[in-house]
Amino acid sequence: MSEKLPFKVADISLAEWGRKAIDIAENEMPGLMKMREMYGQSKPLKGARIAGCLHMTLQTAVLIETLTALGAEVQWSSCNIFSTQDHARGSVFCYISLLFTLNRLNTTLFSAIAKRSLLNPDSHASLIVVYAWKGMTDEEYVWCIEQTIYWKDGQPLNMILDDGGDLTNMVHKKYPKLLSGIKGVSEETTTGVHNLYKMMKNGDLKIPAINVNDSVTKSKFDNLYGCRESLIDGIKRATDVMIAGKVAVVAGYGDVGKGCVQALRGFGARVIVTEVDPINALQAAMEGYEVTTMEEACKEGNIFVTTTGCEDILLGKHFEHMKDDSIVCNIGHFDCEIDMNWLNANAAEKINIKPQVDRYRMKSGRHIIVLAEGRLVNLGCAMGHPSFVMSNSFTNQVLAQIELWKNTSKYPLGVYFLPKKLDEEVAAAHLDKLGVKLTKLSDKQAKYLGLPREGPFKPDHYRY
Amino acid sequence: MSEKLPFKVADISLAEWGRKAIDIAENEMPGLMKMREMYGQSKPLKGARIAGCLHMTLQTAVLIETLTALGAEVQWSSCNIFSTQDHARGSVFCYISLLFTLNRLNTTLFSAIAKRSLLNPDSHASLIVVYAWKGMTDEEYVWCIEQTIYWKDGQPLNMILDDGGDLTNMVHKKYPKLLSGIKGVSEETTTGVHNLYKMMKNGDLKIPAINVNDSVTKSKFDNLYGCRESLIDGIKRATDVMIAGKVAVVAGYGDVGKGCVQALRGFGARVIVTEVDPINALQAAMEGYEVTTMEEACKEGNIFVTTTGCEDILLGKHFEHMKDDSIVCNIGHFDCEIDMNWLNANAAEKINIKPQVDRYRMKSGRHIIVLAEGRLVNLGCAMGHPSFVMSNSFTNQVLAQIELWKNTSKYPLGVYFLPKKLDEEVAAAHLDKLGVKLTKLSDKQAKYLGLPREGPFKPDHYRY
Amino acid sequence: MSEKLPFKVADISLAEWGRKAIDIAENEMPGLMKMREMYGQSKPLKGARIAGCLHMTLQTAVLIETLTALGAEVQWSSCNIFSTQDHARGSVFCYISLLFTLNRLNTTLFSAIAKRSLLNPDSHASLIVVYAWKGMTDEEYVWCIEQTIYWKDGQPLNMILDDGGDLTNMVHKKYPKLLSGIKGVSEETTTGVHNLYKMMKNGDLKIPAINVNDSVTKSKFDNLYGCRESLIDGIKRATDVMIAGKVAVVAGYGDVGKGCVQALRGFGARVIVTEVDPINALQAAMEGYEVTTMEEACKEGNIFVTTTGCEDILLGKHFEHMKDDSIVCNIGHFDCEIDMNWLNANAAEKINIKPQVDRYRMKSGRHIIVLAEGRLVNLGCAMGHPSFVMSNSFTNQVLAQIELWKNTSKYPLGVYFLPKKLDEEVAAAHLDKLGVKLTKLSDKQAKYLGLPREGPFKPDHYRY
Amino acid sequence: MSEKLPFKVADISLAEWGRKAIDIAENEMPGLMKMREMYGQSKPLKGARIAGCLHMTLQTAVLIETLTALGAEVQWSSCNIFSTQDHARGSVFCYISLLFTLNRLNTTLFSAIAKRSLLNPDSHASLIVVYAWKGMTDEEYVWCIEQTIYWKDGQPLNMILDDGGDLTNMVHKKYPKLLSGIKGVSEETTTGVHNLYKMMKNGDLKIPAINVNDSVTKSKFDNLYGCRESLIDGIKRATDVMIAGKVAVVAGYGDVGKGCVQALRGFGARVIVTEVDPINALQAAMEGYEVTTMEEACKEGNIFVTTTGCEDILLGKHFEHMKDDSIVCNIGHFDCEIDMNWLNANAAEKINIKPQVDRYRMKSGRHIIVLAEGRLVNLGCAMGHPSFVMSNSFTNQVLAQIELWKNTSKYPLGVYFLPKKLDEEVAAAHLDKLGVKLTKLSDKQAKYLGLPREGPFKPDHYRY
Repeated sequence: MSEKLPFKVADISLAEWGRKAIDIAENEMPGLMKMREMYGQSKPLKGARIAGCLHMTLQTAVLIETLTALGAEVQWSSCNIFSTQDHARGSVFCYISLLFTLNRLNTTLFSAIAKRSLLNPDSHASLIVVYAWKGMTDEEYVWCIEQTIYWKDGQPLNMILDDGGDLTNMVHKKYPKLLSGIKGVSEETTTGVHNLYKMMKNGDLKIPAINVNDSVTKSKFDNLYGCRESLIDGIKRATDVMIAGKVAVVAGYGDVGKGCVQALRGFGARVIVTEVDPINALQAAMEGYEVTTMEEACKEGNIFVTTTGCEDILLGKHFEHMKDDSIVCNIGHFDCEIDMNWLNANAAEKINIKPQVDRYRMKSGRHIIVLAEGRLVNLGCAMGHPSFVMSNSFTNQVLAQIELWKNTSKYPLGVYFLPKKLDEEVAAAHLDKLGVKLTKLSDKQAKYLGLPREGPFKPDHYRY
Repeated sequence: MSEKLPFKVADISLAEWGRKAIDIAENEMPGLMKMREMYGQSKPLKGARIAGCLHMTLQTAVLIETLTALGAEVQWSSCNIFSTQDHARGSVFCYISLLFTLNRLNTTLFSAIAKRSLLNPDSHASLIVVYAWKGMTDEEYVWCIEQTIYWKDGQPLNMILDDGGDLTNMVHKKYPKLLSGIKGVSEETTTGVHNLYKMMKNGDLKIPAINVNDSVTKSKFDNLYGCRESLIDGIKRATDVMIAGKVAVVAGYGDVGKGCVQALRGFGARVIVTEVDPINALQAAMEGYEVTTMEEACKEGNIFVTTTGCEDILLGKHFEHMKDDSIVCNIGHFDCEIDMNWLNANAAEKINIKPQVDRYRMKSGRHIIVLAEGRLVNLGCAMGHPSFVMSNSFTNQVLAQIELWKNTSKYPLGVYFLPKKLDEEVAAAHLDKLGVKLTKLSDKQAKYLGLPREGPFKPDHYRY
Repeated sequence: MSEKLPFKVADISLAEWGRKAIDIAENEMPGLMKMREMYGQSKPLKGARIAGCLHMTLQTAVLIETLTALGAEVQWSSCNIFSTQDHARGSVFCYISLLFTLNRLNTTLFSAIAKRSLLNPDSHASLIVVYAWKGMTDEEYVWCIEQTIYWKDGQPLNMILDDGGDLTNMVHKKYPKLLSGIKGVSEETTTGVHNLYKMMKNGDLKIPAINVNDSVTKSKFDNLYGCRESLIDGIKRATDVMIAGKVAVVAGYGDVGKGCVQALRGFGARVIVTEVDPINALQAAMEGYEVTTMEEACKEGNIFVTTTGCEDILLGKHFEHMKDDSIVCNIGHFDCEIDMNWLNANAAEKINIKPQVDRYRMKSGRHIIVLAEGRLVNLGCAMGHPSFVMSNSFTNQVLAQIELWKNTSKYPLGVYFLPKKLDEEVAAAHLDKLGVKLTKLSDKQAKYLGLPREGPFKPDHYRY
Repeated sequence: MSEKLPFKVADISLAEWGRKAIDIAENEMPGLMKMREMYGQSKPLKGARIAGCLHMTLQTAVLIETLTALGAEVQWSSCNIFSTQDHARGSVFCYISLLFTLNRLNTTLFSAIAKRSLLNPDSHASLIVVYAWKGMTDEEYVWCIEQTIYWKDGQPLNMILDDGGDLTNMVHKKYPKLLSGIKGVSEETTTGVHNLYKMMKNGDLKIPAINVNDSVTKSKFDNLYGCRESLIDGIKRATDVMIAGKVAVVAGYGDVGKGCVQALRGFGARVIVTEVDPINALQAAMEGYEVTTMEEACKEGNIFVTTTGCEDILLGKHFEHMKDDSIVCNIGHFDCEIDMNWLNANAAEKINIKPQVDRYRMKSGRHIIVLAEGRLVNLGCAMGHPSFVMSNSFTNQVLAQIELWKNTSKYPLGVYFLPKKLDEEVAAAHLDKLGVKLTKLSDKQAKYLGLPREGPFKPDHYRY
């Protein structure tokens, strides 16, 4: 059947299974479904040709189908060569109407999107094109991104949804003529946001940008709540180790660290924290955690988790003091926290236990178990953040896209936070699912507080 | 002996006991002691005549003596007619060199300050004048504040340390000529800060101001950590009620609410939260709390705590549905959250159980126990925030005073946050006491992060 | 008025206030109120002359009035010279119809019982006689106990309710002829139970005994839940110290220790445990607590709590290494855990800060703050266990009294646990107050489990 | 190579990978390794021919090799047709010296045991024979058990290690002549223990038995700590659902329920408990959980977990009220808690999402997701209990086997608990791994307590 398709999908028969997974994920992404409910009729994204560059996962499938349900046409690539979920055991390359000949296993996930596009040519899914597969090379990665810039009818993108800045950078550098036709970019991550502020400062940014990352319902939610659940999940699937009774050393007490520490304690580990920022260090102490340096902690820990976003957190001098079969993993965004080079160069032996789990025998005879080769353990050894928390992030994305597309005049060139009112709207869209009943301010109360009844309720500097 | 004193202190013999209390408090206020250690020699506040208007408590005594240890001359009044701690069973009026004839009981606390001033005329305490006593009238309150404006040598204040804005307002309205001689004001609370921003907006503010309230080590610390400990303390001292097994309803899930909720759950209560802000509501749900409206919660709760800062939280319609002997209290800043007027007008009987504890018999025959007449329960029924958390707030105050006094040129007319570097310094000053060992960034790491090795470590919008 | 009373009550006018306190306590003691509701009509204790010897507190007042409501006549003494609550500021000696001339301050509490007895001569309270006052000597203590043996009409007791065994021992030794007329004793504490088993073993026990202490709803409830709330309460009222961030060392991880540790962590302390029993030690580790010896812990702690029931827990060698202003207290039953003798002999100075709080200056210059002179900190510095948890203990007592009085034949000479069915009944009597809805086994389920539908539900060796 | 083996192992080449897994598991089973260290020289089990019947898992492999290291000869079968771990993707049938022709995939795990036996004929592993494979039929199951009764040299078993009683029953019924030669049986589970007490009562038991199940370090450890970690693990691997914010309904608040509830709350779920036993219900309330009936809870929950050991917990009347995509699973020992028959008969459609995950579409249009078909979710969807907790259970088994084999005279016919001293020894054997430092009683303290210095430290009725 796949031959007759205008897709390049290795096994369209997996589509059914992928659709089942999407169906269940939709129930866990009430924010996105609320967007469909609220804006599915008015289609505020009609006319938008959104090129998206963001990890191709189950949750992203729901995001993409939400954007199209709101009227957009979407072309997609993945923002990371490792992160594409196969949701089965393959990889995928799917597109519409373009003929392409690479022979790859497809995933049920992309099969599902592709099949809906094919079978319902008039449905909102009909214009989705995804360029991504598991295990792509760096060259293929760039190639994929570039395919999303022009539509098959020759028209270019007019909106960007980015995660990390690679698409934004490519358009600025290689397709500068298109910039005037682009209404804006919404950016997902710290790295991408950092890039945007730098471009803005240097005068290089040519399109308005919304920093989705720093919405409360994004950064505070996926970092804290997401990692709280996915860290243990990753460790367990990789090692089945008992957490209770263990000494866990967590480097960094930012939002990611806070989530990790809470989960580890919740399961009965004794947690030691390392920190450079005295405020975060004091916060850790005020919650009853021992705070010390890695030089001391490395001798006590059984499980080590890096969350800092900084390099050189676990080095040879630390590995050499660790107890036998210490488990070492990273849940910070970059894979520079654990000095894998030292380990690979200095261990007596590296024994692969199973995918994403390596046991290094040190010259001392002790062992160190490294998860996901020092990359993100919740992605490498588990399924990443749960759908519900991604629903928060992605509802921010949807609102940011609407905002840039419809209220263009409010956003002259610059990098913006999403208005707090919309941040609150994201949260509000997730309450029903959890059975939360929100209180309404009375007119009298609103007047007393000097606030609009419908919010926003807090000043911008408020720390949730 | 008190007759011979240049103080108006009812019983100077209590000084010894007050000094003991101050001694112990100093050990719990490492931030302030660190300030003395760091700046006691250089005396950066030399020349400063600080008029302070802030609750006269044990912790404030340590603050005052810290300011003088850094070279300042200090005159003080209390910012609230109820909050002056007698630390014994009396009240106090103490001053130096001014003769005054009101006959009042003094407190051991003020006796202690007064006695040190008297006995060590050369000590840093020698210039402290405090105008405050327990149970003052509104007129006396204003009178006290006004006494702090001029020194006995006829010189006026040149710095303000305020809590709520009453002193700041008085100087602006009644002594505008003094404004040009004042280098700035550091303000402690939300209310006072609100006032400052309003004055600034209206062009009425005439001196630079530092908003101490919104330092992380202030607002996040006393609200969250302070209330986490003092709520239960207040409820227990008032009622000795068992918390475990009870249903506790907490109105508001801001920092104060978060602290209260955590403490109540920690003791085994089942907690229900009410919220108007969907972000905070979602946060509460993500921690496993039921979130609903007061209309529903009022039927289930055994203990009710208001933390919102808003009026009309508990009204007649709620009281009427409460279970027998429900305990009702407020830990929000203002006493408008609980409709005491309704209770007093509509209850069949009001029975005073002991100071700060009233049991209302409703017409239904059920009872409601109200703590501290709806005012701050942790102040009314317990000793307020612990010294350690106040050490954080007050170290912010000290640094703000130094900043305004020494780096005047950095602060043209405006309302400023304390620089993040100083906020971090406050935290750092509290780590040793808790045995925390902070990690130092290497040069390489600092370069990687693009940060100074010594901080500040976070962007201004970072939410701790 | 007091002159005309047949009581020896210093100030009967305080009765009203005491009655208020009892009224509120009744609402917090649903188990006892349920007993009144269930057995108030049938009066199963009719004919019982119960001599009770148990701490004279507010909760005991509710117990006593429950026993009389069930038909018993009661005479009472306190089982500890320190524990009598004055519930105001005095002490009491109250009795009916006996003239006695000691002049003492009464408490509102006993005034209340006395007044009800007087004013309602036909009420269930009319036969209550209490011999107890605060601050009695050892001789007076013995005298009081002895008064409860014979009634004013010359009839002796026929039931014993004991706490610690002093009354039981006195009757066995001094009034052996009365033993044949006594149907049994219900004993409250570990110590008393230990005494009973020893008497039984030695052939000295002459009356059947029920070990109330080891009911689940007694030992697991007041030890765990009671101490969880009352430890912090005691520390806070004594010192107002901030718990968050502190290192707390808890000696012993039995039920008392478990409660203490949970409370301290709940408030943000880092907790270190010491243990001799490897099972308890492993339990502590599995909950994430550091477990080490006092030799090591004494250098790290800020707060020390002994819970072991064993002597020599904190000795000179530990005190000498403690940090400045370490807080030291005991919540174990006996006051032998902290070596007060060493402290009193070896400290450079002992400074009394306030009642129950002493600050010792060590020769090193460091200080140690000792609470309640090493006796039970929750009794010495707070109000002991909350009413709700005592309601569980005391409902066991009531059921044990009924059991011995009515089902005498089931209890030949021996020491018995309360039947599990009654233990469950105690729990059941406390559920409504907390809004708990219990599930009923269906006949089919009961048959499947091989259990009676109404319980008991667990084998005797089950560990809750 | 497998052809030349005296094993029936499908793929001996997987042995290396199995050995790696065993190596790591050994590090997580310090109790068993301690047994090897303590008794590896003296070989107390020399002469014992142990027939074992217990789930064939990774942890059991470490147990078996420990028994042989202590001198025993071992033959093994699995006690459940589902529970054999393939630890890869196959199943196994391995034995020594018996020729057998069934062609099956082996597991890496059994390959590993087999290979060591083969390659090191003198090693302690040389006498291990395992009869088990994944996916056996009921007939094969019985056949396997029966193979373990006689050794290849014609000698029968002389010790039994059982889990559930099938082997014990078979020997009693089919091989009664062997009973006089058997020194005893150690039994692992509630079910098996129940069977033993029944046999004893009926006079059918003919060999002494030790009830390992009710050791503290068994029942309190694997139920509480094991399920605390494995419940979430099972749910996550099956569904990737976010736990935070969800309403979780847990039926039963015994040790298993307590563990589940703690884990769910730790991840941010709001937990509702159902209970029939008022004591457990009160315990749940005292920890702040809502306790109600399933009739009410079924409307509120998102996740349902049964832990009761009783049938008919979730029935059609509950399913019909559940929210869309409610997740339903069982972690109680038997699969009778969830009425799967009703679901299969009454759902509109059953959609298999992936192995062990079925999504039922109800006639209402709502869906219910059932994990592991209502069987044990932590075994069906995750790897069961972690090694560390099983080390506790299995060290009890080892000590029970030694006790019965060496101290035979202490155990006349009857069912015994393991002596408390040995229970404590099990705990002690796990402390080093966790860095726990145990305190030793001084002679003086031991005398004060009336206890031996080395324990046992608690009376038999003590509830840990």
